[in-house]
Amino acid sequence: MARKRAAVIGATGIAGQQFLAALADHPLFEVTALAASERSAGKAYRDAITDASGAFRWYCAEPLAPAFAGLMVQDAAKELEPRFAKTTPVISTASAFRYEDDVPVFIPGVNLDHDRLIAGQKRRRGWTGFITPVPNCTTMGLAMTLKPLHDAFGIRQVIMTSLQSVSGAGRSPGVLTLDILDNVVPYIPKEEEKVEAEARKILGVVDGDTVRPAAFRVSATCTRVPVLEGHTETVNVSLERAAAVDDVKRALREHGREFLALGLHSAPSALIDVSEDPFRPQPRLDRDREHGMLTSVGRVRVDPALPNGIKYVLVSHNTKMGAARGALLVAEYLAHRGQI
Amino acid sequence: MARKRAAVIGATGIAGQQFLAALADHPLFEVTALAASERSAGKAYRDAITDASGAFRWYCAEPLAPAFAGLMVQDAAKELEPRFAKTTPVISTASAFRYEDDVPVFIPGVNLDHDRLIAGQKRRRGWTGFITPVPNCTTMGLAMTLKPLHDAFGIRQVIMTSLQSVSGAGRSPGVLTLDILDNVVPYIPKEEEKVEAEARKILGVVDGDTVRPAAFRVSATCTRVPVLEGHTETVNVSLERAAAVDDVKRALREHGREFLALGLHSAPSALIDVSEDPFRPQPRLDRDREHGMLTSVGRVRVDPALPNGIKYVLVSHNTKMGAARGALLVAEYLAHRGQI
Amino acid sequence: MARKRAAVIGATGIAGQQFLAALADHPLFEVTALAASERSAGKAYRDAITDASGAFRWYCAEPLAPAFAGLMVQDAAKELEPRFAKTTPVISTASAFRYEDDVPVFIPGVNLDHDRLIAGQKRRRGWTGFITPVPNCTTMGLAMTLKPLHDAFGIRQVIMTSLQSVSGAGRSPGVLTLDILDNVVPYIPKEEEKVEAEARKILGVVDGDTVRPAAFRVSATCTRVPVLEGHTETVNVSLERAAAVDDVKRALREHGREFLALGLHSAPSALIDVSEDPFRPQPRLDRDREHGMLTSVGRVRVDPALPNGIKYVLVSHNTKMGAARGALLVAEYLAHRGQI
Amino acid sequence: MARKRAAVIGATGIAGQQFLAALADHPLFEVTALAASERSAGKAYRDAITDASGAFRWYCAEPLAPAFAGLMVQDAAKELEPRFAKTTPVISTASAFRYEDDVPVFIPGVNLDHDRLIAGQKRRRGWTGFITPVPNCTTMGLAMTLKPLHDAFGIRQVIMTSLQSVSGAGRSPGVLTLDILDNVVPYIPKEEEKVEAEARKILGVVDGDTVRPAAFRVSATCTRVPVLEGHTETVNVSLERAAAVDDVKRALREHGREFLALGLHSAPSALIDVSEDPFRPQPRLDRDREHGMLTSVGRVRVDPALPNGIKYVLVSHNTKMGAARGALLVAEYLAHRGQI
Repeated sequence: MARKRAAVIGATGIAGQQFLAALADHPLFEVTALAASERSAGKAYRDAITDASGAFRWYCAEPLAPAFAGLMVQDAAKELEPRFAKTTPVISTASAFRYEDDVPVFIPGVNLDHDRLIAGQKRRRGWTGFITPVPNCTTMGLAMTLKPLHDAFGIRQVIMTSLQSVSGAGRSPGVLTLDILDNVVPYIPKEEEKVEAEARKILGVVDGDTVRPAAFRVSATCTRVPVLEGHTETVNVSLERAAAVDDVKRALREHGREFLALGLHSAPSALIDVSEDPFRPQPRLDRDREHGMLTSVGRVRVDPALPNGIKYVLVSHNTKMGAARGALLVAEYLAHRGQI
Repeated sequence: MARKRAAVIGATGIAGQQFLAALADHPLFEVTALAASERSAGKAYRDAITDASGAFRWYCAEPLAPAFAGLMVQDAAKELEPRFAKTTPVISTASAFRYEDDVPVFIPGVNLDHDRLIAGQKRRRGWTGFITPVPNCTTMGLAMTLKPLHDAFGIRQVIMTSLQSVSGAGRSPGVLTLDILDNVVPYIPKEEEKVEAEARKILGVVDGDTVRPAAFRVSATCTRVPVLEGHTETVNVSLERAAAVDDVKRALREHGREFLALGLHSAPSALIDVSEDPFRPQPRLDRDREHGMLTSVGRVRVDPALPNGIKYVLVSHNTKMGAARGALLVAEYLAHRGQI
Repeated sequence: MARKRAAVIGATGIAGQQFLAALADHPLFEVTALAASERSAGKAYRDAITDASGAFRWYCAEPLAPAFAGLMVQDAAKELEPRFAKTTPVISTASAFRYEDDVPVFIPGVNLDHDRLIAGQKRRRGWTGFITPVPNCTTMGLAMTLKPLHDAFGIRQVIMTSLQSVSGAGRSPGVLTLDILDNVVPYIPKEEEKVEAEARKILGVVDGDTVRPAAFRVSATCTRVPVLEGHTETVNVSLERAAAVDDVKRALREHGREFLALGLHSAPSALIDVSEDPFRPQPRLDRDREHGMLTSVGRVRVDPALPNGIKYVLVSHNTKMGAARGALLVAEYLAHRGQI
Repeated sequence: MARKRAAVIGATGIAGQQFLAALADHPLFEVTALAASERSAGKAYRDAITDASGAFRWYCAEPLAPAFAGLMVQDAAKELEPRFAKTTPVISTASAFRYEDDVPVFIPGVNLDHDRLIAGQKRRRGWTGFITPVPNCTTMGLAMTLKPLHDAFGIRQVIMTSLQSVSGAGRSPGVLTLDILDNVVPYIPKEEEKVEAEARKILGVVDGDTVRPAAFRVSATCTRVPVLEGHTETVNVSLERAAAVDDVKRALREHGREFLALGLHSAPSALIDVSEDPFRPQPRLDRDREHGMLTSVGRVRVDPALPNGIKYVLVSHNTKMGAARGALLVAEYLAHRGQI
């Protein structure tokens, strides 16, 4: 069977590089176009990621595939995604369309039933393709772990503090060492609003052609720490119904069984791991488990300040499940469902 | 006037070294004894902090005073503090006595009226001295900032995540680079329980010979990050009475005026600073303000998940106000009150 | 064929842990005994690497094999190696016997012909086993790259500065974050003398029952930098005979062909890689190539200060080729030669 | 006496910010103009250092003086310095003019007698002002320590490896965390050539209207390490005449007595400190001594590989003595000499 043709937009950034690494010799998708911001446009990809000093800024452990190195980089812009969507499914890590009513924000194993929105989106916009973004990298681990709790016990309130790695900032210009070494930066512009809105939308329900967000309240504080990759989040949840710590762990561990049974190419063997070691999860030790597709949870315990309170810590790979590979897994699901 | 004789217990650790730096040529106190754990006992101080490879492990920017370098280090133990207290006021950074009913845990400018417990403590224990610990370094910034909110608006619930520096772990053996570089460690044994208990005790009220803890609920998650000094904390508070963000900022900024008016030797010019720059506070930039005696607050804003919710970020110097210099300021206050 | 029984001495340290990771399901060797320093003796291995706070200090990415977890740790000491050697070949990463005249210090692909010393060592000492240490982790990359230059052009002088990672310090107590974050430590006790002596011995020639060290002069400056694993070394060499940069690169790249043709289990596909990218090698990007068994060289260029001067930069994995896996490869060679 | 009017060119970078911090309320100089690259031109200084996310990127511990915050930033370019020099003395940290025959590259206390070139430079170029750059930040510590050795013993060969901090890279775009955390970068474009040429020029002798470089040979390897400020350098020197280690230390310690006796405003109390502690110098502990104006030396010992060999380690503050404050001290000297 012929592979589907795919374009990687934002191809020069960390997330885009991770996409190219994940897509090398992929059985379903073939990369035929690359796009990035204006300053990269018109160059061969290898030149676009070579900086002024001559340094080759390819950040993945895997080598850059020669076939990608020579591709001409096209000019991306915020008009680009809808232009593609007229004819082509767009699975995006950009935030531009995440907050449109008829656009589902997908997390694998969490809300893929929101794909019912796609038909309406196409109809209303007159597209034969569509746009389905994945969430912000910080929303990814949070919504992934909230979903089984919401399904099993109901959620009233969520309070989350993130300790985000520097790779989450992209490469343009990225986080300067002078800003973050021996330091914490307590603010990431627009991040908290994104997390608060996206988590409620992802756990919401489809109502006609749009999503009705979940009713619980979310409060996020997003900080940057000197970690290369992997976002750590401390999460405090007030549940609708009281739940024992063991029941919470079980719900987390059993999450996504049905989805995983599909055996999709980029899927991990489990969506969530729950550790009994109180010193875990740690971003350096846990971020790469299952090729960065696993959400590692630990320290599940009672929260003494919230009604029916539970708290835990999670680590999620921000540029793998939280970006490129997560989006690819969504694409694989949509291909499985015949949407692509 | 003759200076008061003082002993520094735990003198070889970071906190003890900071004490010695703060006490060099101090107008009120004269160091006449040093004590530390068994392995340092019997050595001159300079030898006790020289390690097996010959490295001189003095961690303060200020030089070690020659008078201290030659002092013989005595054997400390948990029985040491009460033995001293029979005759001598003990201001301690150790946790051993913090949870005794008749022992006040002091924070300068917050609960020094708890000194009313001292008379009862002496009477009940038959001591002419007494023990008054300062809190855990992580409690320090939290209770410091909760106090004015509790006084002005009442507090119902507190949820706190700490991003603690490596110096908070002491030097024996301290945090290994292999554990923390490019990483976050999500657990610090016994830390969360300490913070939860101490914050309520410090904001409690004296009732006869003991403290009745404050009634609000506290939930702490304590993590370690690769920062040398200065603890960062994200704090979410549900108030009893609704308060505008500006009123919260004003309460924080005005905190401690009366205490500061005493003009004690180690006191900062303000207890709490509130920044309007959303990128502050940061531990590397803010920890050393006012000689490490200032609690820096920023990002004061509405918490959308909690009733009458307010959230903010703070930075507090864990080995200065959060340990040695904070304890010294307590001592200065007690001297002013005639308790020493 | 039955697997050879093997003991791992110093099993609780980083190097020992790497040994256990490398030896899990190994086709030639079976671990039947573990030994470490006195404080670990008498405990099951899993308990010996669990610290006072309850943290499980296993530092490898690979899981600890259950068969090793339950093994009792025996008491090691400097008398241990000779006691084993009475009956058993000892391949050691410890320095105790490196400077004995009749003890070869092996580097795979460099001086394995020094195995001619083994018969004499056995005879003189009355052992049926023997001791062959691998060199200090910093000597490893240096001697590996000097060897082909010495063979092809002769070496007069070597000046080397190392930028060593923190894992090279072992775990007892290891390098404290407070010492190395945002810092360089310009001294590692006894390291420079080791490197200077070992490099000359390894490149020396067997003369009867002992090694006559190579005649060139070596000057080492060893520093510690905030890097987790992988030692970087800048090397300046004065050659006996002038050599073009391209000839030097060719000699480095072709090094070890014959040894590699043996196809030993732990051998990399090349001993030395020479990069044309001036920004390489870098420890984080290059340390794990070929399972940490490759020495990565870059920036080969003329040294303008030395006669027939050449300079370059190398990265070598200090706990893989520079310790456990390197020693294992030596053992595989000795088994191939019938010495084991 | 009226203060001299001064312009700071490159005012938005780290070095420029350090200049502004050093020049606040300076007794001799008054800042009346600021200039920087095109993208900052036309903005008030406070806006020019506020980035797209609203963050205020002022990196000094000292606050930005209000008088500077409102100054309009002018457009700088490489033509700027000669345009200024037509009428005004230009003390520059830029490299543009360092390699012109008639331009002295000044280091305080080292070669200020090169000011004899100034008259010729003015005459040949028809300027009433002149240009005198300070060297590259990495040359600074090297030439500072070579000077007394060259004067006392003569120098044949110098081999130097630098471990440079990230602040040496300026802020445009600076060193990304993703590039340097847990890493070493073994190449800094054009740095080694600069150091090799500048060191010989600075220690050269004035011959008519130009400088004749010193005859010794220099080989530099320049690397970047994860350190915020302060360059560490390992130096191996072959002397013309044999010298005992104690004589070398004495020459270093006594360096600059005459210059220091002038009592210039920004001068330290010593130019070079020599430590007997083998663990020093360290950049985090030593960079800020004497306001960053001291070159800290340690580990002075025999180099076994070079004839009459001596080796040592130095730490020099790259953005203080190695840039802004060093240039200011040059200016103070030139004012003292009547050149300004």
